[in-house]
Formats: sequence, structure tokens, C-alpha cells
Amino acid sequence: MANKNQNLLHFRVVMIEHMQEIINGGDSISVRALINSYNHALNENRNMTERDIQLDIIRHIMIVTKPDLKLIDYTRELMTWLIESYHQIHIYVDCNFKNNFDEMISEHEEYNNRCHFWNTTDENHENIDLIVTLGGDGTILFSSWMFQRDVPPLLSFHLGSLGFLTVFDFNDHRRVIRNVIEEGSVRVSVRMRLNCSIYRNNLKENESGNINEIISNRENTEPSESFQVLNELCIDRGDAGNVLEMILYMDGCQITSIWADGLIMATSTGSTAYSLSAGGSLVHPDQNAILITPIAPHALTARPMIIPGFKKLHICVPFTSRITGWVSFDGRNRTPLAHGDSIVVTASTHPLLSICRKDPYNDWFRGLNTILYWNSRVPQRTS
Amino acid sequence: MANKNQNLLHFRVVMIEHMQEIINGGDSISVRALINSYNHALNENRNMTERDIQLDIIRHIMIVTKPDLKLIDYTRELMTWLIESYHQIHIYVDCNFKNNFDEMISEHEEYNNRCHFWNTTDENHENIDLIVTLGGDGTILFSSWMFQRDVPPLLSFHLGSLGFLTVFDFNDHRRVIRNVIEEGSVRVSVRMRLNCSIYRNNLKENESGNINEIISNRENTEPSESFQVLNELCIDRGDAGNVLEMILYMDGCQITSIWADGLIMATSTGSTAYSLSAGGSLVHPDQNAILITPIAPHALTARPMIIPGFKKLHICVPFTSRITGWVSFDGRNRTPLAHGDSIVVTASTHPLLSICRKDPYNDWFRGLNTILYWNSRVPQRTS
Amino acid sequence: MANKNQNLLHFRVVMIEHMQEIINGGDSISVRALINSYNHALNENRNMTERDIQLDIIRHIMIVTKPDLKLIDYTRELMTWLIESYHQIHIYVDCNFKNNFDEMISEHEEYNNRCHFWNTTDENHENIDLIVTLGGDGTILFSSWMFQRDVPPLLSFHLGSLGFLTVFDFNDHRRVIRNVIEEGSVRVSVRMRLNCSIYRNNLKENESGNINEIISNRENTEPSESFQVLNELCIDRGDAGNVLEMILYMDGCQITSIWADGLIMATSTGSTAYSLSAGGSLVHPDQNAILITPIAPHALTARPMIIPGFKKLHICVPFTSRITGWVSFDGRNRTPLAHGDSIVVTASTHPLLSICRKDPYNDWFRGLNTILYWNSRVPQRTS
Amino acid sequence: MANKNQNLLHFRVVMIEHMQEIINGGDSISVRALINSYNHALNENRNMTERDIQLDIIRHIMIVTKPDLKLIDYTRELMTWLIESYHQIHIYVDCNFKNNFDEMISEHEEYNNRCHFWNTTDENHENIDLIVTLGGDGTILFSSWMFQRDVPPLLSFHLGSLGFLTVFDFNDHRRVIRNVIEEGSVRVSVRMRLNCSIYRNNLKENESGNINEIISNRENTEPSESFQVLNELCIDRGDAGNVLEMILYMDGCQITSIWADGLIMATSTGSTAYSLSAGGSLVHPDQNAILITPIAPHALTARPMIIPGFKKLHICVPFTSRITGWVSFDGRNRTPLAHGDSIVVTASTHPLLSICRKDPYNDWFRGLNTILYWNSRVPQRTS
Repeated sequence: MANKNQNLLHFRVVMIEHMQEIINGGDSISVRALINSYNHALNENRNMTERDIQLDIIRHIMIVTKPDLKLIDYTRELMTWLIESYHQIHIYVDCNFKNNFDEMISEHEEYNNRCHFWNTTDENHENIDLIVTLGGDGTILFSSWMFQRDVPPLLSFHLGSLGFLTVFDFNDHRRVIRNVIEEGSVRVSVRMRLNCSIYRNNLKENESGNINEIISNRENTEPSESFQVLNELCIDRGDAGNVLEMILYMDGCQITSIWADGLIMATSTGSTAYSLSAGGSLVHPDQNAILITPIAPHALTARPMIIPGFKKLHICVPFTSRITGWVSFDGRNRTPLAHGDSIVVTASTHPLLSICRKDPYNDWFRGLNTILYWNSRVPQRTS
Repeated sequence: MANKNQNLLHFRVVMIEHMQEIINGGDSISVRALINSYNHALNENRNMTERDIQLDIIRHIMIVTKPDLKLIDYTRELMTWLIESYHQIHIYVDCNFKNNFDEMISEHEEYNNRCHFWNTTDENHENIDLIVTLGGDGTILFSSWMFQRDVPPLLSFHLGSLGFLTVFDFNDHRRVIRNVIEEGSVRVSVRMRLNCSIYRNNLKENESGNINEIISNRENTEPSESFQVLNELCIDRGDAGNVLEMILYMDGCQITSIWADGLIMATSTGSTAYSLSAGGSLVHPDQNAILITPIAPHALTARPMIIPGFKKLHICVPFTSRITGWVSFDGRNRTPLAHGDSIVVTASTHPLLSICRKDPYNDWFRGLNTILYWNSRVPQRTS
Repeated sequence: MANKNQNLLHFRVVMIEHMQEIINGGDSISVRALINSYNHALNENRNMTERDIQLDIIRHIMIVTKPDLKLIDYTRELMTWLIESYHQIHIYVDCNFKNNFDEMISEHEEYNNRCHFWNTTDENHENIDLIVTLGGDGTILFSSWMFQRDVPPLLSFHLGSLGFLTVFDFNDHRRVIRNVIEEGSVRVSVRMRLNCSIYRNNLKENESGNINEIISNRENTEPSESFQVLNELCIDRGDAGNVLEMILYMDGCQITSIWADGLIMATSTGSTAYSLSAGGSLVHPDQNAILITPIAPHALTARPMIIPGFKKLHICVPFTSRITGWVSFDGRNRTPLAHGDSIVVTASTHPLLSICRKDPYNDWFRGLNTILYWNSRVPQRTS
Repeated sequence: MANKNQNLLHFRVVMIEHMQEIINGGDSISVRALINSYNHALNENRNMTERDIQLDIIRHIMIVTKPDLKLIDYTRELMTWLIESYHQIHIYVDCNFKNNFDEMISEHEEYNNRCHFWNTTDENHENIDLIVTLGGDGTILFSSWMFQRDVPPLLSFHLGSLGFLTVFDFNDHRRVIRNVIEEGSVRVSVRMRLNCSIYRNNLKENESGNINEIISNRENTEPSESFQVLNELCIDRGDAGNVLEMILYMDGCQITSIWADGLIMATSTGSTAYSLSAGGSLVHPDQNAILITPIAPHALTARPMIIPGFKKLHICVPFTSRITGWVSFDGRNRTPLAHGDSIVVTASTHPLLSICRKDPYNDWFRGLNTILYWNSRVPQRTS
């Protein structure tokens, strides 16, 4: 505790110096101040990634799973146990399972009062305090997709085979959930999401314009649609036999043109998914980064690229591209990307908080080893 | 200015909330506070990377270049102009060029007073206010190597062919240097360096031990040697025909074993150098990251990996490795890495500040395009 | 000449020994005979790849090009010159250009007699003695596609930018064509094509069967359709968001399952096209080989593979695949590939003979250097 | 049998036509004849790769293994059984094991007469009829190295873990060996080896010359040394920190320059070894090919390349290379490669005949699956 207060004091001193620099120096600071800030930011980032947080009192739990029979049984088991054990907790279940639970609910008034059904078009998921998922990483992607703004903390259980995000075994669910509800203090892995905003070209068909000008004018206007993704957005060429041309901008400035089958823009969380298949590197989830991974690029000099999470990227299909493309968001909401359409990609202000073990960084490496057989040794070579 | 003060106020408010959270909540903070901090840190990082800074008054300039004849002429030209133009500035030149300048210096008292010679073993480079390099990226690596602690801001000129860090053309040197000296306000690219600390195994020859225990005990002790690298440290197998085994630890925890010809641990700055040859991704220099790129790895499942810059990595050659290795630092100080030896790698607290254009992020992409022909188009495919 | 006859004698002796071995030894031959045959086959292959051949007298020349205005002018120029210079030669031009040439033809009886128009559905291209193409590699692919059985020797001109197969400059066309017609002796590069036979599953919808049994029964039956490809056949997943599962068989035996976005089966000629974008190796066109290159494969252990040209490959989409796919042939004839459908791929007995320079192997490397900037040097690294 | 004779007749007809073509047509043949020859060669290659052969009567068996204790026991077991079972067979064992067998041999006259010891410097391995290896692929490489000219057929046993070439389990050794000795009819996989000839530059130190001229003059002269390799020759830069420059020639013509850590020239057999680690493709062993795989190449446009086995490659370190290199052959005979030194690489006329199962092509794929986990499925992706 003494130690913590000392840290705090030091932190306060640095901050005050930092603020004074900004006040006194105009936009400029001194070399010394810059290096202090740099080292301070490095520390801040370390503290940010896997944090112990204190949950609010939990009253509303949403259960998310896929609609298969075994999972409905597990959902029933979980519901029953929660309703019986915690008298103030309400449970929210997928309305597709309604028939399966109707009998159970109609027979117990308590169930009737505290079991509710959600559907994906509901607007009012806002009272949810905790999401519990049963299944694989796909179920987490689905949960992320339902919460396009703030996401409640998410607790995920796998059913035997570990996923990158589903680190708890359903066999331990009572112990794990009891800890979360009763203690409130949990460790979370803060997972960056990407905010993807689609801009449509409003020129008439076959009309073309100056693409750089169009992109530049668009930067501060309202998009047609926006999606938050946890893994990646993917641009592909669909059925078209030809190569897709894309232009990439960063912070308003044209960087490069890419000719390829498609392009993936992924988070670090998504670095073990589609981006990896297309040749992207493995990126630790604590790294706030945007991976740009071309799919089957034309140029031999194309390489996957990593961009800091705080940059603004903008990608379009220019009028010179022989074909148009498609874009999808965590594998959903696939929509055409016409000539002149573009997508602005930035770090979302609504990250996903995934509850993890107290030794959390292990989880990711455990995934690499268990799921990807990472570095698993090939017996022998030559001599 | 109004805008800036508002930012400042907002910043102060967030910081105070943040501190109160820490004080009140013990180690834990609330979900809301965590998300606020996350978004704040993202902004902080954005502000950190390419900053306008105010240099102190410049009195001591070190010139660094390679010892070839053309460069000696350029050095003379630069020296003469600086001495003549700025009467309070002292110039420091490589002592290997002493003979070339002896006559000139002996003839002018002013020169005699204000021209000095450095050699790489000098301890007293501390008074230097600015480094000016003439040449390629190799000259910058050499400058970085000479300053193992704080590095003065560095201004680099290429001689016709652009480098990733040498963005100014020597043809413009008078205008550029005049700006730097007279205005003092410059933009710098803050380049993370890695601090690499070598630990030697002190067991007797052929004695072996429990490698995990050895590594664990070592974490908080003094290393034999330390080096700051700007590009990468590289472990290789030298002449040995066999495969090298390495174990990698992160924050004290064993992550994986790697069987390979060698291993590169690079900064983002180094992502365009050796790491790229070995299959690593391109990483934007504003990303504080450590790239782990194996060279010709045995396992088909090996992949390059990106780790946040605030993690502590530790790599060793275990007693089970058939061969021992070598390690070098930005291509220098090559030394054997015996069984049980290890290296701790962390972000250095002494980054390199490289003076860049006012549209600095362009510089890197310009390098990719000019130097690597990045994404340059292959004329045609199939149909 | 003496030398040639000696070679011939030696060749005859080896062949007779070889035949005697086969007669006397049943299926088995001795170690010595096997090694002799091996060395003989190696020599035979060397002689096979780039051969000087003697063309028959040329009377019927087909001109193939894309329908753009500049190319129509070049076609007219070529036609006129050929008709005027060679009084027994007939010219065949794309019927899509008919309007452009009507006036010219109607005005000269000679033209009327010796200019003909082809369309792609003609069956009677059989009298053609020589194909002349103007344009890029795409025009050669189109020519290859029109001749699904024997292909007449092909002479191709580029219009300024070299292609891998279009090695002659149109500026030299009179000299080159005159040589071909008058001397008859030309050097050709023998390019393997792949024969791709599609087999349709005749189960009812949603019915499934034992895929190995289905494939095995299919091996000696008639396919629904067959195509000869010069570059590659490509299996893709079209619009489907999920991963495609494919099973690969060689010579009737199941080899492996592949989960990927798609799969390319290419000739060596196609190794510089789509296969290269997907990570395949460069394969010299004299190598009779089939390249199997997965596109964005799931498994980290997937690797491109090279199979000898004399093997029979068979690929299917099994009933267990979540999605179905599509297949196309040199970018044409795209057709769905349903569950249980399969494709048998073998070396075609109808290779393409492309007329090349007398130093022919240079052409391919010239392409690598000029088109792909192969191995073009990156200025500098580290030290 | 009828079928075979028909094949034979057809073969004879094709050959005679072929010879007549050559006699009548001068160097040139007709299009039709060329296509016939092409298709014939394709068939010949198919027949060449995995052949049933008839061994001569086996009287002299060499046993090759590594000198570890368990293997010495297995060797003793094998020797005893062979001596006891086959009264005309002589056994040749590594002279390093002499002490282990002295007692056994001195006690039995029969053993004394029929057990012999070889050492690697013996010239007279020529009477050996069969090599039996116990161990992994390394033991086969060692056997290949001992037989620099003709290699007797090789029968290899693994000791539990399958290798790419060691396909028989030692547990089955009596049954397998009995078949080989008593029936004589075996199937062999014909493995191409590379003949690597080293040429030394005889200029004085620091003298340089025209490298292309030197290489050209060298083509038909005697090399300093020659080695046959089964897997690969590897050029590396040893301890040198800089990049190695190499120039590659094919059939006497300069192809390209490569800047890299090193270069591998591998057979198809070697495609699963070092070449694979460096990014080379998997190449089926029936493909007579030379793989050129650069190690950590400088240029982003570098790619692994496959060249037909009948081409002559020549590689040198030019005088412009900043450093010199090293070369090794199947991991042995490592020797410096100075400026101006070069190596000529061609298919060896002494292939290795490895006895395999009667369904031999399976063996290689079995290796890919068992040893490399080839294409083994990653559980799930995105959606």
C-alpha cells in the first residue's frame, strides 16, 4: 500500500510537470519533457492492458450461445442454477429458445418473473451487467456484434476445446461465476475493437470523380453505416475473376495502392484468425494495433503491415479498379463496395472487456500452443 | 489556443478522476473508469509519437559519417560553414579524420578553438546538443551505438539516396540546419530503442542446471553487459551446422521454445531491416513494439510475432540445445551465447529522437515506396 | 554430323538394352538397367524442352487479339502485309472485327478470297497452321482456350511491354514472321497444359454418400466437361463467408484435406501468375509439374506443393464441407462445384508450342527480371 | 503379359519413328513428332520413378548406424541373425564398433570369417550388394555420403519414429529382409542426387577478375573437389555480419544476383529438410528438380525457385561481395567459398535407390502427415 501511494505521488508529479510543459511551452515541449512523457506513456500502457477491475453489483445476466440441442441443455442448467442461487438476478436468454423453456417458466412463478428473452434487434440491452457465453470464439464475435456501443463485461465458457477468448471450462462454471458475482473483483483483458464507417459514393452510375478529392471531403461527414468489429473487416472480390484495386489512406494522406484478391484489417485479437491464414503476423492482444493484411496480392513486394491503433485509416475502391468489391465485418453484414465507396477505420471507443484468469497473458500463449500447435517441434533435420 | 486550454482542462479532469479511482478503489477501478483510461491512453499515444519540441540553445554539434574521401570533403564543407556562420558553436569530428583537417585547423585560430575530435571510447559526449549525420541508415545506427544512454537529437542527411531515417538531402543542408539552430522548434520522430542485457551462466563447463530456475533467479540481478539497439538484436548459430534451440520468456513466464537458424528481436524501426528479410511484417515506427522473427525456423507452425513494447522478454539457449549461439546488437558487439546464457530485452528509457519533416509520417511510407518498391504493381495477371 | 550419328548409335544401343531388359526380366529390371534408364530419361527430358522444329508449309494463319481500336489497326496492317507478300496464305480474323474490315475486303477481290473470319464457336479451326497473337499473355490464354485439342504453333507479339510468353516486339514483326514462313525452322518452347475433367455428383439434393467410394468409382468414367488450361485451374469459395474443405487424391489414393479460401492447380507456365500471388514458388517452364497452391489456408502447416506432371490428381468438395465452391479454368468457364463434385487433373496430351528466340531459356528469366523485378536489390541493410 | 508385349511393340514403333525423324530431319523434327515425343517422355518418366527391380544375389551387406549403445545392440542382433540364417552372406560393420564385437567374433569361427569392419576412408566398398541402415534420415544421408559414386540399394529401418526415407519399422526387420534376400524383387524409389563440383579461384589474394569470364572458362575444366548430395548443398555466410552476394548461372548464362544470408540448392528429397525451413515448397520426390531457396534474402521480390533436374547450375561469390561464404554438402565437408570460387551443380548420374513399400508414393505423404503435421486442421475461424 505504501508502495502504491508512492507510485501515485510520482505519477502526480510527472503529470503536473507534463501539464506545465504544455501550458508554458506552447505546442512545444523540451527534449527532457518529451522523454519523460514517453517513458510515462510506456508505463501507462503496461497498466492498461490487463487490469483488475471492480464490477458493479450484478443483477442482469445475458446468456449467449448457438442454437444447438446440447447448448440448450447447458443453458437450462445454468439458468436454473442462477435463478435458484441468486434471488435478485434476472436472466436473459435468446428468444429462439423460447419454446424450449416455456414449460419450465410457466410452472414456476419465480422463473416467470426473472427469465426474459432477448432478440438481436432489441435496442434495450443496456441494462445488462454481464454477458455469459457458452461455446467457441464465434459466440463471442456474435456477442460483440450485438453490442455496437458499450459492451458489458463478458465471461465465456468453452465446452471442452479451448478458444483464444473462451478460456474457462464449462465444467468449472459454478465456481467461476460465483467468484464473479460475489467478489466483483475480476481481471479483464481489454480488447480493442475497430470502428468501421462505410461511406457511399453518391455519383450516378458510370460517373467517376477525383477519388482523392472525394475521400478528402468525406473525412468529417456522417457515414452511411458503422460497425464495431472484434476480429477484422474483410474486403473481398466476391465472384469477380479479376483483381481488386484499393487505395489506402492514413490520417488523410494517401499511402499506397494495393492490387489483390482482397484485404483484411484486423485487430490484434483477430491476428490469430483470417489475417493469419493470409500471412499476417501473430500480434499480442495487449498491442493496440491495426493489421493490414492483403490476400493474394499481385505485387511481390507487398507485405503485411502493422499500424498503431490510434491512426485513422481510410480505404476505397477507386474508379480505376476493373472490378468492385464486397466488405464484411467479423464475417457479418456483407455489403457491396462500389467504385468510390470507402471505409474509415479507427480504434473504437467501446472496447470489449473479456474476463480472464489472474495470469491472463498466459491465456493467449496457451491458445497459440493448444490451438495452433505454435512452434511445435519437427523431429529432425539434415545431419 | 483556447482549444488547447480546453484540452488541457479535460486532460486534468480525466487525470484527477483516474487518480481518485486508484486511491479509492484499491487496486481495482470500475468498468467505466477503465474504459475512460483506455481511451485516454489511446489519445496520449497519438500525441507522443511525432512531436514538435523546443530544442535548447545549440552550442555543441557532433558530426558523424563514414571515413570515405567524399564524405570527408562534405564534412569539411559543413564544418567550415558552421564555424563561419555561428560564432558560439563548437564542432566535434571523428578523430580518424584528424590528419585531413590538421592543416586547416592550425591555420585558423578560430578553428583551433572550436573544432574538436571525438573518438568512440570518449565518455564525455554528454555536452553534445545535436548530432548531424552524413550518409545512410548505417551511420545513424553507429550514432545510436555511441550513445548508450541519452542521445542528443539527431539530424541526418543522405547523399542522394533516401534511407528510412535519413530523410533530408545534403543539398538542402544549409537551409535545414539554419532552421534547426535558429528556430529551435523542430518535429521529431521518437524511435524506441531496446535495452538488451546479457547474463552469463556461471556454471562450470559441461555442468548444466535447471534452466527455468536459472532464468527466474536472474531477473532482478545485474547483467554482465547491456546494449541499446535501434534496429535489432540478432541471435545466430555462427558456423555450427546444427539447429539452435532457444527458450523465450515474457514477464517471467516461459512462452515457447524455438528451433531455428537464429532469432531476431527488432524494434518497429528495425522492421524494414533484417526482420523483413526473415519474413517479419512491416511495423509503423510509431508503434512501440518488439518484433520476434525466427530465421529459418524448424517448425512449420512458427510465425513472426509482435509483442507490446512494455513487456519484458527474456531469451536463453538451454542446456538441451545441441549447439551454442552468438548474439549481436545492431550488427555490433558480437559475442558468444553459451548454454545457460540469456538476454533480457525491454524498451529502453533512452529513445532516439530523429528530426523529421513537419509531415513526418510520410517519411516512412516514402521509404517503403522508394527503397522497397512496396506494392509496386505487377503489370498483369491471367485474364 | 558425325557427332549426331554417334549419339544416335548410342541411343539405339541403350534403347535395345532397355527393351531386352523388359522382355527378359518380366516387370523387373536390374539395378544397372534402372540407372541407365534413369540417366537416359534425364537426357531425353533435356532434349524435349526447347526444340528446333521444322514447320509444315504455312497456308492458314489465324490472328488473335483483343477488340480495341489500336489493335484493330495493327491487325489491318499485319493482314495487308501478309496478303500482299504471300500469295498462297489465307488469313483468319476475329469476326467481331468484321465491320472494320468490310470495306477493305469488298474493294479487293484478293482480300475477299483470302480473308476469313473466325468466331470462338467454330469447330473448324483445324486447318490453321500458325496462330499470331498481338497483345499480352491474356491473348495467349485466350488462344489456348480456343484450341481445346491440338494447338497450332503460336507466335506472339507484345506491343511494348514484355510478357512471359509474348517475347517478340511487334516492331520487329515483319522480320520475325518472314523467318518463320520462309525458313520453317523455328525454336519452340513446349508448354505443358493441364487437362481438367469435371465430374458431377448425381445424388439428389441434400443426399450425401461415401466420398472416397464416389471418387474411386469415378476414375474411369466419362466426365461432364473437360478443359485444357495453360496457366491454372482455380477453386474458390465465391460469396461464401466460410472456409472451403477440399480432399486431394493422387493416382487414386487420398493424400490430404485442405481447408482454405480456395486452391490453385497450376502449370509451370502458371507459376508466375495467380499461384505466385498465393505464395507458390517460381517453377521453370521446362519442368513438367503441377503446382498445388492453397489460397489463405487454415492450417499453419499448409505449404505449396509441386507434383510431377505425370501424376493424376483428383480434387473434390466433400459432403462435410460447410460450403460449396466454384471452379474456373484460366479465368474462364466458371462453374459451381457442389458437394460431391470433383475434378481430375492430368497433363494434357495437347501441349502448347510457343515459338521463341533461339536462346529460349533466357526469355523466362528476362520476364522475371523485367516484369517481376525479381531479386532486384534493396539498397542497404543494417551495418 | 499380352498387355506388356503390346506396350513394348508400341514403344518400339515410337522409338523407331523418333530415330527416323532425327536421321531424316537433321536437327529439326516436325510438330507432330515433337508432340509424340513429348507424350512419350511423360510416360517414360512415369515408369521411371518407382520401379520394381530384380536385385542380384546378395552376398555382401553393409550395416550403417550411429554409434550409440542401443543401436549397437540392434546391430549385434541383426548380425547374428543374418550370419546364422544365410550361410553365404558377409556382413560389414562400422569399425568403430569393433571392440563391442571382438569377443563375439573371436569365439565363433564362422563369425570371424564372415564379419568385416569398414571405415569411411575405405575405397573398397564396391562389393557391397545391399546397405541396411538403422536409425533416422541422418543415417541415410551418412550412407549416401560414403558412396560418392554408385550406391548399392539401400534398405532402411527406423526405431519407432518414421522418417521421410526410413519407412520400415525395425520390429519387422526379419520379415522385410527375408523378402529382400530371398525374392530379390523389390520396389525402389529412385532418388536424384546432385553432383556438386567446387572450383577454386587461382588469382592471388586481393586480385580480382571478370567474374563472368572466369565462370565461362571454368565450365569444362576439372573441379578441385566434387560431392554427391542427397538433400542439399548450402551456402552460408558463417560469422560474417554482412550480406552475401551470389551470382547464379544456368547452362552457362547469367540469370540473377542474390543478396542473402545464404542459399540452399536442394533435391526434391531435400524439400522437406532445410529448404522447407527457409520457405521452399514441398516437392514430390519423383520430380527430378533442383530447388533454389534463398535464406533471408534482401530483396522483397526474391522467391524460391524450381529448376528442372537436367539443367546445369553454376553459382559463385563475385569479387563485389562484401564478404565471402562457406559451403557444405548434406551438412558435411564445410569449406570456405572465397571471392571467385564457384560450384557447378548438376543431376548426379549416381542416384540413390531406396527400397520402399509396394505402394511407395504413400510413403512421402505419410511422412508429411506424421512428421510435419501437414495441413492438420486448425479448429475454427471467425464465423
